[in-house]
Amino acid sequence: MISKVIIKYDGSNYYGWQHQKAQKDVITVEKVVKQAVSAINKIETDVVASGRTDRNVHAIGQVFHFDNVHNIPSDRLKFALNNALPDDVVVVDVEEVSDDFHARFSAKSKEYHYYINTKEYDIFKRNYELYYKYPLDFELMKEACALLVGKHDFTAFNTTPKSVKKNHVITIKKFDVIKDNDYIIFKIEGTSFLRHMVRMLVGAVVFVGAHKIPLSRISELLENPNGFKSPYNIEPNGLYLYKVYY
Amino acid sequence: MISKVIIKYDGSNYYGWQHQKAQKDVITVEKVVKQAVSAINKIETDVVASGRTDRNVHAIGQVFHFDNVHNIPSDRLKFALNNALPDDVVVVDVEEVSDDFHARFSAKSKEYHYYINTKEYDIFKRNYELYYKYPLDFELMKEACALLVGKHDFTAFNTTPKSVKKNHVITIKKFDVIKDNDYIIFKIEGTSFLRHMVRMLVGAVVFVGAHKIPLSRISELLENPNGFKSPYNIEPNGLYLYKVYY
Repeated sequence: MISKVIIKYDGSNYYGWQHQKAQKDVITVEKVVKQAVSAINKIETDVVASGRTDRNVHAIGQVFHFDNVHNIPSDRLKFALNNALPDDVVVVDVEEVSDDFHARFSAKSKEYHYYINTKEYDIFKRNYELYYKYPLDFELMKEACALLVGKHDFTAFNTTPKSVKKNHVITIKKFDVIKDNDYIIFKIEGTSFLRHMVRMLVGAVVFVGAHKIPLSRISELLENPNGFKSPYNIEPNGLYLYKVYY
Repeated sequence: MISKVIIKYDGSNYYGWQHQKAQKDVITVEKVVKQAVSAINKIETDVVASGRTDRNVHAIGQVFHFDNVHNIPSDRLKFALNNALPDDVVVVDVEEVSDDFHARFSAKSKEYHYYINTKEYDIFKRNYELYYKYPLDFELMKEACALLVGKHDFTAFNTTPKSVKKNHVITIKKFDVIKDNDYIIFKIEGTSFLRHMVRMLVGAVVFVGAHKIPLSRISELLENPNGFKSPYNIEPNGLYLYKVYY
């Protein structure tokens, strides 16, 4: 049967879910998950995730599926996987799904969260948030987020020189910015995301909020997708893949 | 001149302040601090800390001193050190001190804090706190802490087989246990600490709180210091060297 697995991971020690280039000696989340699943299946087994996450990006609700060849019940499978996985990867939930379920192709949308600490650099959280030292104009960032919501060609917010995806038209269903004490939190949900797209979108909004670029720059990048690329990428360490919707 | 430096560090990626045995290829906090100081002095320079911290133990207020041969003013030295240090070691304060100041021998007492998360395992904080899944009897832990306060022979709470220190009589000036939402926090101040002593004291108190050992076990360990060793060590990841008092 096919099992759908929701996992959390601390991306700090991994080269992302899956490395882009053929690097042999790097540890990826996919590699340790595949090892655990293969040990349980007693045969080498591929795992298929909802998508990649970059190096140092975390996940609260990444999803993958695999062929549970011995039909292990979900609760026992969760327990066995957590025993087999390192302590920075945790299975949150396991569910039996229909045979046509596909972690990537069945996904309707994905939600990412980004955490910015605006108060002071915290050495113990440096891998889990971005410390941003310049004042951020909250109302202006709200406006910038609002501009990005909707159906747009996001080619300008994409770092792959020749993207594998031909279609860069994506619907951003939600792009909220929230103040929570000393934190600014972004919550963004889209039908899909191009490479580095979340970080480039958040980066552009933060640059607007810091008065480094005008709000109109956002519109220009959306209106001229094949013009210049948005150069406002932001560090991965504040980014979490929060949820995948099916 | 002699400079006194207060530093914070994330112990997760280090083999402690200084390794116990001659291991060549391990990274210690002392090593990176010595490198930074030597680069600034333009000559290999030793640094002397208030004491060692174990592998994976953190510091909020570790102190070291060194010979600031070029008499760089404290504020400039702080800036230069922070530039030279990796991002998991941060200089909080630098002060010019008299020539007879010694980070270890001048210390009057040290304070450590220990964080226990009693709610649920948090993957993003696993290096910075201990998750303890059994219920803890708060009032009983208070009593256990109170038993340990005062001047005692702590030989039973010490892992070095033949301790370098001949005198194991130490005064615990404070041993508080605090409830803060889902956290139990221990604050312990003593005139000095033996190897693993803080972890063994907190461990014993936690075992009392979990009803795994009776309160009387604490008294027995204090009254018969040369009897059996306390076996209740606790993980280093929740421990912080909070402050050194001079």
